[in-house]
This record gives sequence, C-alpha cells and structure tokens, in this order.
Amino acid sequence: MGKDLLKKGERLDDLHRNGYMLIQDPEKFCFGLDAVLLSGFAKAKPGEIVMDLCSGNGIVPILMEAKTGCDQFVGVEIQADNVDMARRSIKYNKLEDRIFMECCDLKELGSIYNAHMFDVVTCNPPYIKAKSGAVNDIGGKAIARHEIMCTLDDVFAAAAKMLKYGGRLYMVHRTNRLADIFELSKKHRLEPKVMRFVHACIDKAPSMVLIEFAKDGKPHLEVQAPMIIYAAGNVYTKEVNDIFYN
Amino acid sequence: MGKDLLKKGERLDDLHRNGYMLIQDPEKFCFGLDAVLLSGFAKAKPGEIVMDLCSGNGIVPILMEAKTGCDQFVGVEIQADNVDMARRSIKYNKLEDRIFMECCDLKELGSIYNAHMFDVVTCNPPYIKAKSGAVNDIGGKAIARHEIMCTLDDVFAAAAKMLKYGGRLYMVHRTNRLADIFELSKKHRLEPKVMRFVHACIDKAPSMVLIEFAKDGKPHLEVQAPMIIYAAGNVYTKEVNDIFYN
Repeated sequence: MGKDLLKKGERLDDLHRNGYMLIQDPEKFCFGLDAVLLSGFAKAKPGEIVMDLCSGNGIVPILMEAKTGCDQFVGVEIQADNVDMARRSIKYNKLEDRIFMECCDLKELGSIYNAHMFDVVTCNPPYIKAKSGAVNDIGGKAIARHEIMCTLDDVFAAAAKMLKYGGRLYMVHRTNRLADIFELSKKHRLEPKVMRFVHACIDKAPSMVLIEFAKDGKPHLEVQAPMIIYAAGNVYTKEVNDIFYN
Repeated sequence: MGKDLLKKGERLDDLHRNGYMLIQDPEKFCFGLDAVLLSGFAKAKPGEIVMDLCSGNGIVPILMEAKTGCDQFVGVEIQADNVDMARRSIKYNKLEDRIFMECCDLKELGSIYNAHMFDVVTCNPPYIKAKSGAVNDIGGKAIARHEIMCTLDDVFAAAAKMLKYGGRLYMVHRTNRLADIFELSKKHRLEPKVMRFVHACIDKAPSMVLIEFAKDGKPHLEVQAPMIIYAAGNVYTKEVNDIFYN
C-alpha cells in the first residue's frame, strides 16, 4: 500500500512510533533532529487543540499525535508540495480525523480561523534571517530554512493570534537568534517560561534551544539542565534515544 | 596597617590576587561567586576605560585591575557606607590612581560624566524585581539584592549612555530574568553577543548567566559551553578554581 502513495523521488521513513511512516523527499523537505526534539519537548493533554506552524511534511503533529494522546491537530504549511506529502502520510497512518493540514500563509490565519481557539502552538520555523547566510536557491528548502515567506515576527504574531489566554507556544530555534526571539515574543505578549539548550556534547556550546512561551504569562524564566545529544562514541544519550524510539 | 582601616563589624578578606585584600561587612555587603565570575568573564585591554555599576564594596574593579592590566576604573555605588568601604580597600591596596569610586545614583550619571566615554561597563545588578520575593528589610542588603534604588531598565539606560559606540557591557544575572534582560537591552541598543550559563553541577539547571553586550552591535548571539562550578565532591572545577586563585 505504501508504495502506491509515493511520488518520484520520495521515500517512506519509519517514525518508530505506533508503526507510523512518513513520506519524505530529500530534494524538498526532510525532518531533522530539531523537529523530533520539539515533538518531545512540547506538552499537550488529551482534549487540547494544537496548531503546528511551518509544518513542512507534518512531522511534528504526527509525532505528537503518537506521543501525547491529543487528537486535534492543525498543521499550517505554505508550500503545496509539502502539504501534499503531509496529507498522504496522514492518510497512510489513518490519521485523517486527527490531523488536518491547512495550506496557507500563516499571515492569513486570522481570516481562516477564529482568534484564540488553540491551547497549544508548536513551531520549527525557518532559522535564518532573509538576506543573511548563503541562499543558493529560492526553492522549497530555502523557504524552509530562510525567512523568505515569513519572519520570526510573523510567526509570533500568528501564534499570539491563535492561542487562548494562557495557551502555550513551543519552539525550537538556533541559539544565535535568542535575543531576537525574546524581543519579538515579548512584543507579542508571549512570555518565555521554560528554556532548554541542546548540546551535541556536554563540553560543547549549544546549537539549538527549545522554548515554551505562555500567552500573557508572568515574567519568570526557568532554564533547565542541558540536553546532551551524544554520549561517548557518537551514541545517542539515553534521553535522546528515548525521544526517538521509546 | 590593615587593622587601622577596619571599622566595627568589618573584616579584611584575601582576594588571592597581587596580595590584594578587601574590606567586607557581613551586615552590609559581601561579594559572592557572581562578582568573581563576572570579573573573570569581562574583558578589558590596557588603555581602556571601565565603569562598574552597582559596584558595592568595589570587588569587581579591584579584581579586574589585578587581572586585566587596565588602569582606569570608575566604580559607581549609591550606598555611602559601601563606597566608604570600597575607598578604604582601594587605599589599602594602593590603587587610588587606578580606581575611583563615585557615590551617586546611576540615573544621575549623565550629569557627572560625558556620554559615551567608556570602553567597557561591568555590572552585577540587584537581581530581584521590586515588589517580588521576600524583602525582609529595606537596608543595604535589600538594596543590593532588590531593584529598590534602580531597575534593570535603569542599569541598561546608564550603560548605554556611558558606553562608546561598539563598547561592551558585561553583566551577571539570574537565569530567570533572561527574557527581561534581552527585551530591555535591545530597547537600549545593547545587543547580546556572548552568553554563558553557570551551572552548579553539569546535570543541574543553570542558576546564573554571564552576558556580553555590544553597544549598537549586530544581532548574533554566541551561546558558549556551560561553566560548571563543582566537580565531584563539591570541589571547584579547574576553570573556576583558576578564576579564584590563578
């Protein structure tokens, strides 16, 4: 059955959760460690409604459906070919009644959804500012990596508009954007509450950061113990191994 | 000689640098690990002019004078009894031509010093927001710990006013204020450039953070590898031991 769902160049990857598989195209979009860590960091309870912004091929809502017991996810993605891949993965995993993919610009969400309906928003946004870094093409990969179609300001504006009072935003991003992240999140009244840095090894600088924001939250940030990816010998630490496989 | 300099309740502590000693009063102000780590994190080159805000008993400029080769420091402190202690320590260590203590409110600095004269500003500010936390008294210790006489916004405003274009601010603070720190520093065009978290142990959440800001700097933050205070058995790690004693 899986093979019929695949288009040219695509592959079907095992997510090691509930037997779920994910359609990926190395030329277009493949998820990375960041999306997996975000799905492990984000909290959602059964009954809560979750929106994933910059959803790509739907990796975050599909993993979160498997992990959290939540059954109401909306993935928002601007690139039609990614949405098409995500919808076929959702169909393959029989998740059509739990995960809906919305193909739209997140700046337009206010005209599609009522404001302040969602309990949780997740986002693995483009990391790199437009006009910085080397952009070798303007194709799908560049849109996923660079702030071409949306800026960090747009992401926070969309999350603030969709979240209920007290709702939570979970984001993964690069550490070098942290000052921008806090400045912009505060602007949109998304208060950073919990932060965790991700280090390849314990003696290395962190490259990624996981952050939980609360809509209209009180200013107080808990910085948690570091997350370490690799133990000795380039083997995943138990914690990261569990996020992938348990 | 040292004994003549001491007032009732005061003691003379060895700084383990150049034979320098520091007058402290446990009832008023004693420096902590944070001030020592700040003096190790802050960079200053010979010929640069350094201002220390919220200077207390002068611990930061006295340690930095010993470590950096810089010879022009101004310590700014609002509490006259702390300034008095600092001046006697400076005299004891024969640093009168290198470190000057200014007894004033940092909000008034603009009427005492020309703007944008300093290469470096250091600050170990009060950590706790006024009207939060338990304030048991309104004495000197409370002023050093709580934002009673100055807020974080005031500190950034003073640093921005005193620093040259491209000048650096070095600050130590609690991790739970980090979002406030970045929001306010950005407001005053002090861009966070380098950040290091301080963890008691490697598997514990960090409690303190050291940050370097650049006046009118370009947005790009380097988060460094964690600083760990204690190795096994509550012994300082080599790095922290060196900051104290080498």
